[in-house]
Amino acid sequence: MKISIVGATGYTGAELLRILATHPEAEILYITSESQPGTAINEIYPHLTKFYTNKLVSMADLETIAAESQVIFIGLPHGHAMEVGRKATAINPKVKIIDLGADYRFKNHAVYEQWYKLPHTHKEAQAIYGLTELNRTKVKEASIIGNPGCYTTASILALAPLVKEKLIDVTSIIIDAKSGVSGAGRGLNLGSHFTEVFENIKAYNVAGHRHTPEIESVLGELAGQELIINFTPHLIPVARGILSTCYAKLKDGVSAEAVDEAYNNLYGKEYFIRLLGRGGYPLTKNTRGTNFCDLGWHVDKRTGRVIAISAIDNLVKGASGQAVQNMNVMFNIEEKTGLNNAPLYP
Amino acid sequence: MKISIVGATGYTGAELLRILATHPEAEILYITSESQPGTAINEIYPHLTKFYTNKLVSMADLETIAAESQVIFIGLPHGHAMEVGRKATAINPKVKIIDLGADYRFKNHAVYEQWYKLPHTHKEAQAIYGLTELNRTKVKEASIIGNPGCYTTASILALAPLVKEKLIDVTSIIIDAKSGVSGAGRGLNLGSHFTEVFENIKAYNVAGHRHTPEIESVLGELAGQELIINFTPHLIPVARGILSTCYAKLKDGVSAEAVDEAYNNLYGKEYFIRLLGRGGYPLTKNTRGTNFCDLGWHVDKRTGRVIAISAIDNLVKGASGQAVQNMNVMFNIEEKTGLNNAPLYP
Amino acid sequence: MKISIVGATGYTGAELLRILATHPEAEILYITSESQPGTAINEIYPHLTKFYTNKLVSMADLETIAAESQVIFIGLPHGHAMEVGRKATAINPKVKIIDLGADYRFKNHAVYEQWYKLPHTHKEAQAIYGLTELNRTKVKEASIIGNPGCYTTASILALAPLVKEKLIDVTSIIIDAKSGVSGAGRGLNLGSHFTEVFENIKAYNVAGHRHTPEIESVLGELAGQELIINFTPHLIPVARGILSTCYAKLKDGVSAEAVDEAYNNLYGKEYFIRLLGRGGYPLTKNTRGTNFCDLGWHVDKRTGRVIAISAIDNLVKGASGQAVQNMNVMFNIEEKTGLNNAPLYP
Amino acid sequence: MKISIVGATGYTGAELLRILATHPEAEILYITSESQPGTAINEIYPHLTKFYTNKLVSMADLETIAAESQVIFIGLPHGHAMEVGRKATAINPKVKIIDLGADYRFKNHAVYEQWYKLPHTHKEAQAIYGLTELNRTKVKEASIIGNPGCYTTASILALAPLVKEKLIDVTSIIIDAKSGVSGAGRGLNLGSHFTEVFENIKAYNVAGHRHTPEIESVLGELAGQELIINFTPHLIPVARGILSTCYAKLKDGVSAEAVDEAYNNLYGKEYFIRLLGRGGYPLTKNTRGTNFCDLGWHVDKRTGRVIAISAIDNLVKGASGQAVQNMNVMFNIEEKTGLNNAPLYP
Repeated sequence: MKISIVGATGYTGAELLRILATHPEAEILYITSESQPGTAINEIYPHLTKFYTNKLVSMADLETIAAESQVIFIGLPHGHAMEVGRKATAINPKVKIIDLGADYRFKNHAVYEQWYKLPHTHKEAQAIYGLTELNRTKVKEASIIGNPGCYTTASILALAPLVKEKLIDVTSIIIDAKSGVSGAGRGLNLGSHFTEVFENIKAYNVAGHRHTPEIESVLGELAGQELIINFTPHLIPVARGILSTCYAKLKDGVSAEAVDEAYNNLYGKEYFIRLLGRGGYPLTKNTRGTNFCDLGWHVDKRTGRVIAISAIDNLVKGASGQAVQNMNVMFNIEEKTGLNNAPLYP
Repeated sequence: MKISIVGATGYTGAELLRILATHPEAEILYITSESQPGTAINEIYPHLTKFYTNKLVSMADLETIAAESQVIFIGLPHGHAMEVGRKATAINPKVKIIDLGADYRFKNHAVYEQWYKLPHTHKEAQAIYGLTELNRTKVKEASIIGNPGCYTTASILALAPLVKEKLIDVTSIIIDAKSGVSGAGRGLNLGSHFTEVFENIKAYNVAGHRHTPEIESVLGELAGQELIINFTPHLIPVARGILSTCYAKLKDGVSAEAVDEAYNNLYGKEYFIRLLGRGGYPLTKNTRGTNFCDLGWHVDKRTGRVIAISAIDNLVKGASGQAVQNMNVMFNIEEKTGLNNAPLYP
Repeated sequence: MKISIVGATGYTGAELLRILATHPEAEILYITSESQPGTAINEIYPHLTKFYTNKLVSMADLETIAAESQVIFIGLPHGHAMEVGRKATAINPKVKIIDLGADYRFKNHAVYEQWYKLPHTHKEAQAIYGLTELNRTKVKEASIIGNPGCYTTASILALAPLVKEKLIDVTSIIIDAKSGVSGAGRGLNLGSHFTEVFENIKAYNVAGHRHTPEIESVLGELAGQELIINFTPHLIPVARGILSTCYAKLKDGVSAEAVDEAYNNLYGKEYFIRLLGRGGYPLTKNTRGTNFCDLGWHVDKRTGRVIAISAIDNLVKGASGQAVQNMNVMFNIEEKTGLNNAPLYP
Repeated sequence: MKISIVGATGYTGAELLRILATHPEAEILYITSESQPGTAINEIYPHLTKFYTNKLVSMADLETIAAESQVIFIGLPHGHAMEVGRKATAINPKVKIIDLGADYRFKNHAVYEQWYKLPHTHKEAQAIYGLTELNRTKVKEASIIGNPGCYTTASILALAPLVKEKLIDVTSIIIDAKSGVSGAGRGLNLGSHFTEVFENIKAYNVAGHRHTPEIESVLGELAGQELIINFTPHLIPVARGILSTCYAKLKDGVSAEAVDEAYNNLYGKEYFIRLLGRGGYPLTKNTRGTNFCDLGWHVDKRTGRVIAISAIDNLVKGASGQAVQNMNVMFNIEEKTGLNNAPLYP
């Protein structure tokens, strides 16, 4: 498979390269960077030494990149990705696009435009939301994938069974999520400065984080009704990992066993979802470096609430791993190809 | 003030000694340990070198300890503290007791016995719950203090104004709390092993943590009605710090300004409570090593919920600092004596 | 390849299982544990869920284990491994033994007995020291491997070219090494308690660490003369990683280029050794989860010293990865089989 | 004491404010910042809320600042501090200057100019090197202090007794130092980005760090001869703390007891130096937030070397704490005023 990565110097780009380094079908054609064209990728990321000798190129030559590639991963800021997607598919209508940003995640462009404060410039794209476990059939046929956000992957996977089987009051959903710092990327800012993050716990973007409408859209579709939620992200001094703690009111008469069944029904055959069962406690550490999502749930009889907890590696299942999973599905390769390593523990 | 500490080799004991080292009125008489009597305290805690030369003694000689002390801090496991409290007050009815554990925290002993699986053996004690800001008047007259738990201090302080002024639906309270590892103490177990905790995020004791009934009792009293909550603790790889993110449904018609007022009314004159205001984000780092509780709150108009966030140092305001604050109140000393240092940042 | 692991519940055992999970030739027959026989391995290590369903067995049945296995990895404390080695090879003379502990590391048993305070009970074993890059030819023919220690692997690899080509005064060697906490294992002790390790830096076992004689033996052999060194280990609050900073006096007239050449001569064709060159700075992070050893060196003209720095993942190149590398060599499999993943960065 | 801080928005400035917040004699007049004049200090550093209400001012008005202040602390980059020092002392010859940077640390300006690549513009200043324990008498009379660097404080304190009593071969000194990240300041760069530092260990500036000539100058003066050393700094993922591991060859016939005596002679009466004795292991954690330097030393009879280890908090004894200690000495205040708090442990 001939692969190019447009915008590869961020952490999701590096993570794609890490994963694809051992993917037996992957051949990396072009890796682009506007800031450091001409530089060898392993000068920027010395950990990739012995795996790549590619030099970064500018995406100015999208003509060539799009023409020669079978699949293009896009790791650009929102707003830029849809431009590349639009042009690349015009150049080569057969090329598959997997965008790791937000540009192709929303069916309803108005929601995108409202939360991202940008006009959408590629509305005619038949983009598919790439939460593989929920959308596999559509992903298989897709030519453009909006790869889900990290918080959204963790949160939606935790709640989907409950929403789908209508076990909860969807007006009662509260998601309290905790993320490692790699989710904030490699760009410099005081919020990611070591001494500021270390030995610290904080919430941010309460009631305003852009993953909120993404979660609402997908869960709303599953529920068959619009819904609004509370989503609160927190920054935790770890490099990788998201833990999403989700609260909802069970509908009257819903038993704990019905909850168990909902999880087993939806995920019982999924390789990358490991069900820890009722009473189970996912650890982000148990998913590090892998595409797994670990899930546990709890039913509190005193309050009538269900508490569902998910753990993922934000850079893998929450970004580049799921992107490769989607690629495998799109190209009819065994879904876990290149993704079947055991977690790095401890 | 002649002070003894019974059960001093845990982290709360060490923290008491750290704080009292610069308390101008404090004189440490006896420090007890059953496991290492005869050892100098700074052999166990070398950081205290130059501050103490005391040798640990056994509490077998409670007779002397109680007779000579004006105040005894107790840092023993629950069940043991009430025995010491009972005996010490019998020996010396004037001695003040400040228990850092759970034994004296519950007015309703049945709740204690249910959650702690132990008969209460000192029911006649006129114990006062030592959340200083809420109970100052009673603390002033108290002879036995049940010093609040760390999670409970953070959570109650965040929610008290809303509950007291009846701004929220008390059946809707959800508390998602994140704690550093020092809260788990110095006892060895796999859950506090460095490599297990580091680079990890996890929830634990969902719907079953013993701070739940403590929060319910105090908030229930403020509300004037029984209430039940969801409380979920999480373990975060930091040494110190609790961040408590609290969710509740605002009652119809409650404005954001009314919420602001509630916080200002209750805490406007409190030294140890720093109000960051609506939209504010407390950081545990900003409270490290101090008795401060930083508070911020957010009103989500979309969902009608208020999200209140508090940050404390679990070993100070969440344990030993508040214990000293209570001591100061009990002995009519300026409340911030020994506690007025600036946070250790970064 | 039929593989058993005797003593598998420590971190090196878990790491072997992690690596072997994607080794195409590996079939795990028996995994032993004396403390928890009958338990499924993924109950103890949930991160291995989806990779193993093995139940732990007691090594009491060594008869069967040794008879059916082609290779046995031993993860027992020193003193115990040689007993297992002795019995297993008696039962099945064809079985290959790879011991991750110290029992088979010393040619001179007197040195072992002096530093480990134990009589050696398997002196007739023709054990080979498994530092693959230095001993590949012998490893190929070996039936018993003493797999090197973590500090020793890092330190010897950094110094071997200089010693071998006689560029330094071997009486001047000082090794200052820094290790993550996983090197101390999963056993509980205050020294590995999160709150004690976190936000802390310390040295330990100055002039007394047992990796000292191991380094001295191997470097001494390369030098063709006995030598003694200073080796100082430090504990650093990371999970994985060793950085070894090695100092030595260059002999008169040795040029910086001669130093460069020595490294290129010895390691130029080694896959798992990545030479960062003169002036290069290895990062432990760049080796995480891999079998790589990154090497950089510096020549200080002012003082006439060379400073060689190596970085490894202590659990991989410093333990289980090198063990698998040795297995591959012993069984004539491509050396990087199962070990060719890219580092987990960041 | 009327105090101003010029250049206060870095970590050493914030640390000065933290310390001075509880210094009974300190009154903060002016705090300068060129980037954010007009801003309240607690907007930049919210942890200082309740301690300061000062607004930042520009140092453009040095005339006023110098005229009204009794002491000015300078927290500017090198090159800038000497300009401020020159002007301020011209304006007000009585004002005391304590510079936390390098400008006033070198008696031999040529060494400064060679390592810092700048002409020295205030050569007529009678600056004193403010390593209080070694220079107390001179500090007392000084009007300009070059406050020592963090690495240098730790390293010089560890080696001074050995050098002063001529127990070691001064050509054999090797210093391997490990520092937390706060030493790199609050300025943004990839080297202090959380995800790059976390779970990582690395050396940097081998044979080229600017603290090298500072250590050489001071030790050389103590030795009564020029000397050159190897100094290697390492970056460790902690916020605060320096551990300096120092190696030197003992002269023939020097006994371990003579080494002990040298430490006791020089430091036996020093409050801020805590001698852990021969065989002792300093922990950076034991000094956190304090002005203590903990010292231990080891004599390796096999190699004839002494290994001296020191631990400090780089922001306190390694910067702002020692600056305040010097101020106390200069103003004839009890030396530990404002500095006598116990370490924040754990």
